[in-house]
Amino acid sequence: MNRIPFSEVQETLAGVLVRLGMAEKRAQTCARLFAETTRDGVYTHGINRFPRFVAMIKNGSVNVDAEPRRVAGYGAVERWDGLRGPGNLNALAAMGRAIELGRTHGIACVALGNTNHWMRAGTYGWQAAEAGMIGICWTNTMPNLPAWGGVDPVIGNNPIVFAVPRASGPVVLDMAMSQFSYGSLAAYRKKGEMLPVDGGFDEAGNLTRDPAAIEKSWRPLPIGYWKGSGFSMVLDMIAAMMSLGKATCELAMDPLIEVGISQMFLTMNPDAFGPSARAAEIADEIVASLHASKPVKEGGTVRYPGEQTLRVRAENEKLGLPVEAAVWEKILAM
Amino acid sequence: MNRIPFSEVQETLAGVLVRLGMAEKRAQTCARLFAETTRDGVYTHGINRFPRFVAMIKNGSVNVDAEPRRVAGYGAVERWDGLRGPGNLNALAAMGRAIELGRTHGIACVALGNTNHWMRAGTYGWQAAEAGMIGICWTNTMPNLPAWGGVDPVIGNNPIVFAVPRASGPVVLDMAMSQFSYGSLAAYRKKGEMLPVDGGFDEAGNLTRDPAAIEKSWRPLPIGYWKGSGFSMVLDMIAAMMSLGKATCELAMDPLIEVGISQMFLTMNPDAFGPSARAAEIADEIVASLHASKPVKEGGTVRYPGEQTLRVRAENEKLGLPVEAAVWEKILAM
Repeated sequence: MNRIPFSEVQETLAGVLVRLGMAEKRAQTCARLFAETTRDGVYTHGINRFPRFVAMIKNGSVNVDAEPRRVAGYGAVERWDGLRGPGNLNALAAMGRAIELGRTHGIACVALGNTNHWMRAGTYGWQAAEAGMIGICWTNTMPNLPAWGGVDPVIGNNPIVFAVPRASGPVVLDMAMSQFSYGSLAAYRKKGEMLPVDGGFDEAGNLTRDPAAIEKSWRPLPIGYWKGSGFSMVLDMIAAMMSLGKATCELAMDPLIEVGISQMFLTMNPDAFGPSARAAEIADEIVASLHASKPVKEGGTVRYPGEQTLRVRAENEKLGLPVEAAVWEKILAM
Repeated sequence: MNRIPFSEVQETLAGVLVRLGMAEKRAQTCARLFAETTRDGVYTHGINRFPRFVAMIKNGSVNVDAEPRRVAGYGAVERWDGLRGPGNLNALAAMGRAIELGRTHGIACVALGNTNHWMRAGTYGWQAAEAGMIGICWTNTMPNLPAWGGVDPVIGNNPIVFAVPRASGPVVLDMAMSQFSYGSLAAYRKKGEMLPVDGGFDEAGNLTRDPAAIEKSWRPLPIGYWKGSGFSMVLDMIAAMMSLGKATCELAMDPLIEVGISQMFLTMNPDAFGPSARAAEIADEIVASLHASKPVKEGGTVRYPGEQTLRVRAENEKLGLPVEAAVWEKILAM
């Protein structure tokens, strides 16, 4: 495992993107988002994910130069066309616009169709929270999960984010509809470990904690069984209807050509009615009540979503971003 | 089990409410919401729940005459004070206002504080969908669920609703953050059945399908384990911050005095950019893709949330509303 300074990571990735035809300023922003994702501890969707992103530029799935475009607007809602540009830049622009609109109207929504994978979902929640806004955003995905009662993958794991601004640390929930991602399943299998809870069905249709059995059956579990299955359906439906983009059932079942997805970016202004010290107090009181909870294990703690992020961020900023040596070598050769 | 005509149920309940001091018109609406809940098959929160609602009027938890009041507004968001009035009437008014505001702004939100239990969460999703709007609403509750990593109940099961209008049947997800409610656990126990999946921890801290063991430990599971736990936290935080109402940690842990809760009502207009035949097609295509999924069991089906409702509604309208004889007798004596 290497430790590379943040700025070196950003410059290196940006250089690759520029060589692939991305404009310098956009390349810097795109590279920064990858570096920030690793910095914040979401290693699956940061630097480690960059080679796949490059492959999708090379195979034409990601239009390196496309910038998202507003195609319709009414009051506090807008519809944008992502023109199959880089997913993280598109999402950053969409949430940025939702933040502006939310300041004007108190609540707002940008529906973004025809876009690409946004990498780390939480990025856009942090973006909203750091701008003082409540942010809710979600994406649909290719079919990668059986619906409850079915065996073939017909729904997406459709990550959703809820972010709340808070002076001493935003609360950011970033959660996919599957209990474990395929990436997680592979990681447990490689360590030779069982999952901590049931993660799917084996080929015989029994619930199992064996990651390999679930990889084989392609039947991971939605969170809350039938509940997460229904949740995935409505998120897909709302995103595709508001953006007039593709639904999960129209997306290719191959991550390298999963293009033209649909996303939603909602913001609400907690200070819409005037600055409220009470709203900030409420958030802190809730956090305090969680921290006062009796832990299952001696010395354990109950945490709020995102609580670890600032600590991990500080550590990675100090020590450098952790990067698998093989991945870094591959990127340096690009 | 009795079968009572809808109109007779409504008149009977309304009569009780009028005798408790509720104005005639409000009593009719309040009674209708209870009757509609049973009609739609949500038996736990319809007529069967009415005696507890009456008890909460009698003990002063529900102010029979209070009407909700707008206390602040900015653009597309409003803050309302429920004045501890009847929870279902307050929620109906709040969603009604969110529908109006959503028509004007494309998206809107009403944050309602100081209210009471809204009974069936899905009611307000159906209300939005039947008005042609996408509706998202949620409520906080008293602490009734341990957070992930903790043993004492410090979070609520905070039901959330996502509703999508659709000509051949709205899609309405109505889901609490606990995998099974205490009501469900009791029902399984009384039938002498195990839960279909793990529903919580026993007193030794092991995951279990035994409903009695979970009732004893007071440790039901959030949906998706750590995920539903985090989801519950952010929903509580947003509702309390936007309404400046109470958070879960400030609510009494007794259903008869669980008063002054906080709720959110969001609407989005799928026709905000002009009527779109394509949006309706998208919803139908998603439903068709689900119905085409290969079922786990021969002859089984994959369903969308709310798919059974219209069938159950039609049956109960035809046969009369099913009411437990003992409950009906109790209500007739009120």
